[in-house]
Parts: sequence; structure tokens; C-alpha cells
Amino acid sequence: MPFLRSKQVRFAHCDPAGIVFYPRYAGLLNEVVEDWFAEGLGVGFPELHEKLRLGIPAVRLEMDFLQPSRYGDRLDFTLRVLELGRSSALLDVAAACGRQARIRARLKVVLMSLQTLKAVPFDDAWRARLLPFVEAATSPEEAHRK
Amino acid sequence: MPFLRSKQVRFAHCDPAGIVFYPRYAGLLNEVVEDWFAEGLGVGFPELHEKLRLGIPAVRLEMDFLQPSRYGDRLDFTLRVLELGRSSALLDVAAACGRQARIRARLKVVLMSLQTLKAVPFDDAWRARLLPFVEAATSPEEAHRK
Amino acid sequence: MPFLRSKQVRFAHCDPAGIVFYPRYAGLLNEVVEDWFAEGLGVGFPELHEKLRLGIPAVRLEMDFLQPSRYGDRLDFTLRVLELGRSSALLDVAAACGRQARIRARLKVVLMSLQTLKAVPFDDAWRARLLPFVEAATSPEEAHRK
Amino acid sequence: MPFLRSKQVRFAHCDPAGIVFYPRYAGLLNEVVEDWFAEGLGVGFPELHEKLRLGIPAVRLEMDFLQPSRYGDRLDFTLRVLELGRSSALLDVAAACGRQARIRARLKVVLMSLQTLKAVPFDDAWRARLLPFVEAATSPEEAHRK
Repeated sequence: MPFLRSKQVRFAHCDPAGIVFYPRYAGLLNEVVEDWFAEGLGVGFPELHEKLRLGIPAVRLEMDFLQPSRYGDRLDFTLRVLELGRSSALLDVAAACGRQARIRARLKVVLMSLQTLKAVPFDDAWRARLLPFVEAATSPEEAHRK
Repeated sequence: MPFLRSKQVRFAHCDPAGIVFYPRYAGLLNEVVEDWFAEGLGVGFPELHEKLRLGIPAVRLEMDFLQPSRYGDRLDFTLRVLELGRSSALLDVAAACGRQARIRARLKVVLMSLQTLKAVPFDDAWRARLLPFVEAATSPEEAHRK
Repeated sequence: MPFLRSKQVRFAHCDPAGIVFYPRYAGLLNEVVEDWFAEGLGVGFPELHEKLRLGIPAVRLEMDFLQPSRYGDRLDFTLRVLELGRSSALLDVAAACGRQARIRARLKVVLMSLQTLKAVPFDDAWRARLLPFVEAATSPEEAHRK
Repeated sequence: MPFLRSKQVRFAHCDPAGIVFYPRYAGLLNEVVEDWFAEGLGVGFPELHEKLRLGIPAVRLEMDFLQPSRYGDRLDFTLRVLELGRSSALLDVAAACGRQARIRARLKVVLMSLQTLKAVPFDDAWRARLLPFVEAATSPEEAHRK
């Protein structure tokens, strides 16, 4: 079960060629992760940071820009957990507009204590929250059709 | 001979944890590419787009976030061309603060006609401009010490 | 009848003090204007720019930052047209979180032809679209309670 | 004696019309303020925030967008202090490209304690730093010609 979220491409995302400027896809990707924490995992960033004193810094990002997107486009994002490590998670995030794939990203994040600045293992409560999203990758067009 | 450029980490680049928000590294990376076109290759983006009617869309980005950066830090960027294809170039861009590596990125761009929206082979003039920057990767700390 | 739209304050909007960085309020304000064109006026930016060949450049912006906002906050935006000129509109945009006013902005935009780059008078069709939103300013908290 | 600083308009600042997207002028303005603190006043933001535990939140911004700017343009910014209050400063910031004025902004900031979140009066040391920049407004084109 991937986490699904649609986002509108904004005028502000686009460059003088009228298409999404690629650094802004990384910002959109992070918005989807923020939504997933709040709504998919049930722990929003304010609670994560201020109450639990945890952060999830990115350690690696890969993005393939498959087709350009224009403002007004609606992007259907699909997020799943490809690998769940001791204190890291490898996320697969894809975006499609209708049936056309636009970007495919892999983001590796680490659970970190904001007090010690060291990695923290995902405990049982975290694993219970994350497990429903762990799965093999399928195409994003397929996920949104289900 | 890599292209070298220093950039100051700005308050605006940083998130509530006080460190550079990773999507903004992609923006910094693109600034370095923009500087390299203007000053390293001698063809600034306005000339590239408006006079030559060419663009260089990104097709793939990989970034490793090695150590956090804070506002006030000076990042020394090192850009080189790892692979020069028929109409694509794989760029290696690294940033260090002093001797500490902060990010390492690979960006693949394609030369594209803004009229046909199709890939265009690098002609001899482009190859002559690009060749001085083609080389095997070395550490960014080393490059800035030379 | 003002145009109402709620927006979530994002992690990406916030600075190292954990509050919205003021330049990003200008971005949020523009998103509300973009939504208003698409949903309030029935002419989205893609249609405005590409089909009608019109733009609405900003000529003046005023913003008062009344209280700080934090990520996770939901901002209720209220947009109305304070003055409708021959080819310009003065917009009043306010944002509140619950009953607390956060920002108050005035944005003056001009209808411009993308062909001549000159101001274009609002014709009867535009005036019919705009008139429902022309009204004297009231408090944003009040508008969202109605 | 105003504080002078030139900035290049970047591809990333520009929108699908190829001109600077107005919210990004607010970001450029803040960069100039950041530079002024570090180089004009001798107290960079890291020292201001972390050592002195002070911040300078914006309470009001006004911007007039006089002429559009394009990527590749060099903007000459001129910053002066129009009014120095007990704990507030009203800054006048203008930008010109060559002899053409592009934007004119007024930014009111307040000196605030990050511990109490209350306004703090500028003491004698701050006044000594600020006084050289207090002056009546002149045209930005004039300032950069001196």
C-alpha cells in the first residue's frame, strides 16, 4: 500500500522554459514526505521534531526527470518504502500526470536524535507505522488507478 | 582542470534545524552550472537560450549529503565533466567547507534544441569548450588546494 | 464575498528560527492569487497566459507581518479586490491562524498584453468576473467564520 | 553612505515570462540585508543569532516593481537606514540595472531577543554601527556612480 498524494504544479515551480525547474521537484518531493509523516505515519514534523526530538535528515537523493511538467498539471505522487534498515529508510517516490510518468526518485533518510545528532534505530512503534508502506516498486500510474 | 566556484551558505538556504535544507543544495548546484556556462564555457544562459535557442535540461540528479552545512559557511564547489556523450554530459559536482566534504552530486544534462525539443549533438565548437573540464574525479578538497 | 483559501505552513517555508521566512509569505500570497484566478475567476494561469496572451505583473506589494507562523499551522487566507481600476486591481490578502491575524498584504497587479507588453483595460467580461470580489476590507477572522 | 552590493539575476529567480518572479525579489532583498549585517555592520547572522541571541524579524515590507529584470542582469543594490527608532530600523533598499531603476523597497525590522522574544533597544554599540548608514534617500543610480 503506497502513500498517494496529488499536488498541483504551480507557476512558482516553473522556469523561463515554462516547465518545472528541477530543484523544485526536490521541494515537492519533500512536501510529499512531510504529508506522509503527518497523515500516513501519524507523526507530523512538529511532533517529530519538538516532542520526540527526532529528525530525518536526507543522506542521498536520486531523481530521474522523465518528462517535463507545466504549471496547471496535477502530479499524482506515490510513496513507498523500498528498504527499511536499522535506522534508515529508502523511499521510492514517483510522480505521474495522468498515465505519463514524470519523475522517479529515491530518497534515503535516517532517523536521528536531535539531542545526540546520532542515528537512532526504529523501535517497534516506528516499525509498526512504517511496515504498511514497505513494498516492492510498481508503476505510479498503476498505483493511482487502484 | 575542474571549474571552481565558492558560494556562501545563506540564511535562506537553512531549515528550522539551522542546516541547509537538501532541496536547496540542488538550487546551489544549478547556480554553479549556470556560472560554469557563463565563465567556464563562455556561453551564458541568456545567450544559450535566446541566441542559440538551446537548452540543457537535467535528466538525472544524484546527491549525497555527507555533512550538514550552516549559514555563514563558505562552500567550495568543484565541477568537472565525467562523461561527454553525443549530446549529453555527466557532471560531477562536489562541495567542501575547508577540508570537509559536504555534498557530492552527479547531474546528467542533455543539449536540446528549443525549437524541436530534441537532443542535439555537441558539435566541434561545443566539444572544444567542454574538453578542458573532462577528467576523472578527484577529491574536492584537493582541487581547491591546487 | 471574499475568496477564501487555506494553506498549510510547510517545513520548507520556515527559517532557522522555526518560523515562516518572510520572503516565503510572498510566495504563499501568489499561490492564493493563482488559486483565485483558476477557481474564483474561472481563468487559470495557463489559459490566461497561453490562450488569452495576458499576464498580471505585480507593480506593488505591501506586507505586514503581524505574528509569526510555524510549520504545521493552517493559514486561512482571505482575498478581496479593494480597488478596481481601468487595467489594475488592488488586492487585499490577509491570513489568520484560528482567530489570530498573521499577515496583511496589499498587492497591486496590472492586466498586461504579453504581445505588446502594455496595460490592457479590463473589459466587460473581466469586470463581471471581478465584481463579486470587490468589497471593503473586513477582518480575515470574520470572513472565515461566516 | 549607503551600503552597496551587486547581485546577479539568476535563472532560478525567473518565471515562465523570463523575468524575476516578484516573491524572489524579497529573497534577494534579504540577501542584501544579510550581507550588510556581515560586512557593513560587522555582525554576521551566525554571530547575531547564536552568540548575541538576537534576531531582526521583519515587521513590514513594501516593494515597488518598477521595471522587469531578466537572468544575466546585474542588479546594483543600495541600502540605507531611513529611520532609526528605539529598537526598530526602517531600511530603504533600491536596485538598479545600469541607470534603470528596477525595484524600490522599504523594510522595517526590529531588534529582538531570542530569549524573551521581545524587542530590545539598540544600545550605543549598535547605534555606532548603524549611524554611518542613516541618511535621506537618493536615487540608487546616483549612489553607485559615486
